[in-house]
Amino acid sequence: MSFADKHLGTTMALIVQKYGGTSMGSPERIRSVAARVARFRAQGHQVVVTVSAMSGETNRLIALSKAVSPNPDPRELDVVISTGEQVSIGLLCMALQETGVRARSYTGGQVKILTDSAYSKARILSIDETAIRRDLGQGCVVVVAGFQGVDAQGNITTLGRGGSDTTGVALAAALKADECQIYTDVDGVYTTDPRIVPEARKLDTVTFEEMLEMASLGSKVLQIRAVEFAGKYKVKLRVLSSFQEEGEGTLITVEENSTMEKPVISGIAFNRDEAKITVLGVPDKPGIAFQILGPVADANIDVDMIIQNVGKDGCTDLSFTVGRADLDRAMTLLDGVREQIGAAAVSADKTMCKVSVVGVGMRSHPGVASKMFRALAEEGINIRMIATSEIRISVAIEEKYLELAVRVLHKAFELDSVASSKNISN
Amino acid sequence: MSFADKHLGTTMALIVQKYGGTSMGSPERIRSVAARVARFRAQGHQVVVTVSAMSGETNRLIALSKAVSPNPDPRELDVVISTGEQVSIGLLCMALQETGVRARSYTGGQVKILTDSAYSKARILSIDETAIRRDLGQGCVVVVAGFQGVDAQGNITTLGRGGSDTTGVALAAALKADECQIYTDVDGVYTTDPRIVPEARKLDTVTFEEMLEMASLGSKVLQIRAVEFAGKYKVKLRVLSSFQEEGEGTLITVEENSTMEKPVISGIAFNRDEAKITVLGVPDKPGIAFQILGPVADANIDVDMIIQNVGKDGCTDLSFTVGRADLDRAMTLLDGVREQIGAAAVSADKTMCKVSVVGVGMRSHPGVASKMFRALAEEGINIRMIATSEIRISVAIEEKYLELAVRVLHKAFELDSVASSKNISN
Repeated sequence: MSFADKHLGTTMALIVQKYGGTSMGSPERIRSVAARVARFRAQGHQVVVTVSAMSGETNRLIALSKAVSPNPDPRELDVVISTGEQVSIGLLCMALQETGVRARSYTGGQVKILTDSAYSKARILSIDETAIRRDLGQGCVVVVAGFQGVDAQGNITTLGRGGSDTTGVALAAALKADECQIYTDVDGVYTTDPRIVPEARKLDTVTFEEMLEMASLGSKVLQIRAVEFAGKYKVKLRVLSSFQEEGEGTLITVEENSTMEKPVISGIAFNRDEAKITVLGVPDKPGIAFQILGPVADANIDVDMIIQNVGKDGCTDLSFTVGRADLDRAMTLLDGVREQIGAAAVSADKTMCKVSVVGVGMRSHPGVASKMFRALAEEGINIRMIATSEIRISVAIEEKYLELAVRVLHKAFELDSVASSKNISN
Repeated sequence: MSFADKHLGTTMALIVQKYGGTSMGSPERIRSVAARVARFRAQGHQVVVTVSAMSGETNRLIALSKAVSPNPDPRELDVVISTGEQVSIGLLCMALQETGVRARSYTGGQVKILTDSAYSKARILSIDETAIRRDLGQGCVVVVAGFQGVDAQGNITTLGRGGSDTTGVALAAALKADECQIYTDVDGVYTTDPRIVPEARKLDTVTFEEMLEMASLGSKVLQIRAVEFAGKYKVKLRVLSSFQEEGEGTLITVEENSTMEKPVISGIAFNRDEAKITVLGVPDKPGIAFQILGPVADANIDVDMIIQNVGKDGCTDLSFTVGRADLDRAMTLLDGVREQIGAAAVSADKTMCKVSVVGVGMRSHPGVASKMFRALAEEGINIRMIATSEIRISVAIEEKYLELAVRVLHKAFELDSVASSKNISN
C-alpha cells in the first residue's frame, strides 16, 4: 500500500507539493521529482507543485548582480533572482510531459500571486486560483514558481529566503488542499540534529507551536513564515524526503485535534551563532534597560535573552544575546549609548551558543526546567543565561559544550525512545 | 562633437538601442553599456533599451532543457529560455542606477509585447507603450527584454534566434522613435567580410532592400525579420559597434529618400553551407519539376537555385541547391520520389558555396552579370548555377574557390574605394 493510498485515501485528493533546490539540483533529480508527481497523479490525485531554483542558482544570480552593482536596486534584484524558479518550473513541466503527464507552468505573475511591494521580503496578499482550477479540471499538473509574486502594479517581487515553503502553504490554503507536502533533503522533523545525536528520532507528528519554536530557534527544516501561515489557515502540512520512495515524514498538527499522548519534550534545538553583550556599571534606575535596548532594536538587531544583575551601590550589569553576525554593529552602537547613560564599560563574548528544549507537554509538567538544569549541572556545564516561553526553555552556554549539552538533554528526556518519552508525560 | 549631437541634433530625441549578447557578455561589459546609455541620457535624449541574454546563456538553457527532455515542450522551453533576457534587463538597470541614471526594467509580459502563440517563433502583434511613455516622462531609461512576449492568454513566447533585433525595431516603430540603434560586435555593414577581404569597406548607408538580400544571403549583421519590420514601418535603423566610443555605423535607408549617388554594387555576400542535388535521367515532361520539388518544399527544406538541363532523348537532369544541414533529409526523401517518377539516379555534391553581388544600382546597369562572370572566368572559377533577383546575382561555385571569388569580385566592382564605385554608377 503506497503512502498516498494510506494517507490520502483512495478517493481523489488535492495535494500541493513543494520541492526545494536540492531536490531540483540536476536534470536527473528533476526527472525523479517528475516520477514522484506522476505516481500521485496515477493514483487519481490532483497535484499542484511549487519549486525552488536549482541549488546554487539563486546564489549565482546574486553574485552576478553584486558584480554589476555592489548594492543592487531591490526591484531589479528581484527581477534577476526570480528567474531561478522560472527555469525550474519550465524544466519540471518538460520532465512531466516526458513521463506522459500533462503539465503547465506558471510564474508568480502568471498565477497570479499578489504580494505587497516589499522587494526581497514581500508578503503574499492573495492568490488567484482560476487558472489552476481550470488546468486541474483538465487533468493537468500545475507547476507554480515558488518564492515570487507580483505587486498590484505588476512589479516582480520575491518572498525572501525559503519563500518557496510559504508559496506552497499559501497555494494549499487558497486551494483548500487536502495536504501540503514539503519535500526536502531530510525525511522529517527530528528530536534533534542526528549529526550530533545519532539516536535522534524522527517525529511522526509535531504541533505547529513546537515547529514554530524550533524554526525560530535555528531548525532549518521549515521556514518560520510558512509554519505561521499553515497554522493560521489550518493547512495540513507534512515534511518529507524527496530522496526516499517510502516514508511518511512528519505531520505538523494542530495540537487540539491530536488524539495521541504527547511527550513532555518533542525536541532539542540549538543555535551556534550567539554572542553575549554585557553593559557593566549601569546606573540602577527605572527605564535603563529600554535606554540600552531601544537603540539596538531600532537598528533591526534581534535581542534574545536578557538578564539584569541584582544591583549593588546603585549600579548593575545588563547582559543580552544577539546574533553573532550583528555583534560588531551592536558594539559600535552601544559605545555611544554607554557614554550617554554613564555606564562603565561594554564587553562582548563571542563564544556563546543557545540550547533549547521544546514541547507543548511542558505546559502541564512543571518539572522540566529543574530536570534540564540538573542534567547540565551533572556534566559541569555552566548556564549563563536563561529564557523561557510557555513551551520551551532556552539556555545560553559556552559553545564548546554544545554537542555535550544536546546529547545529555536528549538522553535525560529519553527522546531516543517513543515509549519512554510517552511514559514521562503520563 | 559627439555622435549623438551630430546625428540626433541638439533637441531631445527618442532613441531605441538594442545590445546583443556579446555586448552584455560580462558584468564589466554591462557597465560599459550602461555608461554609453548614460551619455545619451546626459545629452537630454530619451532612451529605451532592449537587450539579449548574456552570450552563451540561451545555449546553456537550451542544453539544460534537452538534458531534462530530448524534445522539450515548446511552451515550457520558452518559459525557460526567456529568463536569459530577464536576467539581462535587471542587471543593466542595476548598472544604470549605479551611474546615477534612473532605470526600470520590463519583461515582454510586463510591457506588454503581445505576440501570436507560435512558441519559439512568435510574431509581435502589438506593443502597449503606456508604461514606457510614463517612465520616459519621469526621466527614466526603460529597459525591455528582447526576444520575448506574451500571447493573448498570457503565455510566455519567444521570437526565435536574433529576435531581440525585432524587439528593438518593433519598439522603435510603436514609439515612433527618432532612431533605432542596433549595437553589435561589428561597427557597421561592410562591402564584404573583412576576414576574407582586408580592403572591405564599411558602408555609411545601405538600403533596406540590399540589407534584406544580404541578410537572406548569409550576412549575420541584422536579423532578416527586423529589417523587414523596419522597412515596413519606416524605422530609421543604424548598426553600430558597442565596443567603440566613436563611429557612426551604417544607416539603413529607404532608397528613395537618399540623395547620395549609389554605387552599382553595395556588397558581396556569401554562404558556405550549400549542397547541390542533381536528379538524373528525369522524364522530360511538364510538371516534373513540381513532382520533384513539391515534396522537398513540403518537408520545409528551402530550395534556392534551380536549373533544368536541356532535354535529350526525352530525358533531362534537374539540379538545385539546399542548405547543407538539410541534405541528408532531402536525399532520403528524393529516394522515394526517384522511384515514383522513374528517374535514373540522385546525386549530391557537398562542396558547393554561394557568392552573391548585391546592389540597388544594378537595376539601371545591365552590365553587372557579364562583369561578374568575366571576373570569375579570368580566375578559372567555374560557375555551376546562377540565380538572380532585381538587385542581386548569385552563383554557385566550388567551395574551395570561395575566398578567391569574393576577393576578385570585390576588386572588379572597386568596392574598396568609395570614389571608384561611385564612378561606375555615373
